Amino acid sequence: MTNERPIILITNDDGITAPGIRNLVEAVKDLGQLVVVAPDKPQSGMGHAITIGHPLRMNQLDLFGGIEAWQVSGTPADCVKLAVDKLIHRKPDLCLSGINHGANHAINVIYSGTMSAAMEAAIEGIPSVGFSLMDYSMEADFSAAREVVRSIVMKLLAEKQDNHLLLNVNIPKVSMELLAGIKICRQAYAKYQEDFDERVDPHGRKYYWLTGEFVNMDEGDDTDVWALEHNYVSVVPIAIDFTNYKMKQQLEEKWS
Amino acid sequence: MTNERPIILITNDDGITAPGIRNLVEAVKDLGQLVVVAPDKPQSGMGHAITIGHPLRMNQLDLFGGIEAWQVSGTPADCVKLAVDKLIHRKPDLCLSGINHGANHAINVIYSGTMSAAMEAAIEGIPSVGFSLMDYSMEADFSAAREVVRSIVMKLLAEKQDNHLLLNVNIPKVSMELLAGIKICRQAYAKYQEDFDERVDPHGRKYYWLTGEFVNMDEGDDTDVWALEHNYVSVVPIAIDFTNYKMKQQLEEKWS
Repeated sequence: MTNERPIILITNDDGITAPGIRNLVEAVKDLGQLVVVAPDKPQSGMGHAITIGHPLRMNQLDLFGGIEAWQVSGTPADCVKLAVDKLIHRKPDLCLSGINHGANHAINVIYSGTMSAAMEAAIEGIPSVGFSLMDYSMEADFSAAREVVRSIVMKLLAEKQDNHLLLNVNIPKVSMELLAGIKICRQAYAKYQEDFDERVDPHGRKYYWLTGEFVNMDEGDDTDVWALEHNYVSVVPIAIDFTNYKMKQQLEEKWS
Repeated sequence: MTNERPIILITNDDGITAPGIRNLVEAVKDLGQLVVVAPDKPQSGMGHAITIGHPLRMNQLDLFGGIEAWQVSGTPADCVKLAVDKLIHRKPDLCLSGINHGANHAINVIYSGTMSAAMEAAIEGIPSVGFSLMDYSMEADFSAAREVVRSIVMKLLAEKQDNHLLLNVNIPKVSMELLAGIKICRQAYAKYQEDFDERVDPHGRKYYWLTGEFVNMDEGDDTDVWALEHNYVSVVPIAIDFTNYKMKQQLEEKWS
């Protein structure tokens, strides 16, 4: 960080009008110069999609009491790319994504638009954090989440961070008094047991809704799932190098 | 593998009518019982998107000379989920995604629909490979790629594989004679230097096309970028646990 006020890029995947991003702005607005660049409509489950088949549009809005804010007709990753390339005059000091309405723990990290925005920023060399509250409701109570976000952001701004810092932070749905603290974790091994809901439309054609049950297959007490079940805020540092080094070594021995 | 013929799930992100998936089917059709489940339109750059906001449809087609084939109105990850949950009576022995028209080396792995399909299968415990040819043309010559695919698939079917085996295979645009061999690699550290192309529509409003230049920032000779530049087929084993363990340890020390 220089002596200049830190520039904090704010984005999300629930869209610029979601309560979660408003709570994120409220939590940190006095900690730096905020620039909000977020999708113009909900983008949940977009993973790390980018828009290459059609062009993007962006419009400046006054939604956050004078804070510079833009809505973009694309994905969370598009928002970060546009912010960095077109809107902000220097590399932001921090990118915050969220606060997501719903959990992004364990395997959810790969489906999550919230985390894909943070990941895109980390690829650009901007320390980044995705925040998610384990409450899918649009009327969720973000008061404890705001305090958690603020304390983590203050910790990060207090010293120079690794350029590729990328944190997946999940906040349990409990009051501040019941929060057990913050726990650094690994990603739990979990998956969805899919169960497509088959229906028939008024014209007699079948269609399928994706539903499924989250199944944790990981017994460890060092995972994000464990932490959240025990009322901790889970913090999982995420890699942008996806190489499986153990398997690389095995294959080198086998295939040579 | 049991004594039964292996079931091989085939998918892609360029859509079921793309030449790449036809070449993939041709390369392996005598090696097992194939089931093709692929998007009904191109899905490049969809990352690990899943469809939750609207329902999916699927239709059986006869596009591959009697091989069971379905087109799905969703993303590559949706195709794998539907195939596993609704279409195939037991867990496939192998999932093959591609052959993608264009490279998915280095950081492209996270934007790639091809790799997201393979990743989805790996999450389901199905050994999976994404294949990409470094030629974006719809008229690309897949003859060398077919031979590469076939030799890798035969190697994988010859013995029991790790359930979470997930390989990102990229094939350089050269003839079989010029191919230097297969090299097990790590993901290079690279990114796109974005450069949005700003235009004005006939109504006077600005819009932006995402463009950008691939920038390799990795000097290593053990990366996929290096291998491809030296006419090797690159094989990067990919993790489905994205935890950055080194950073986890650093944060545990710092934040405790």
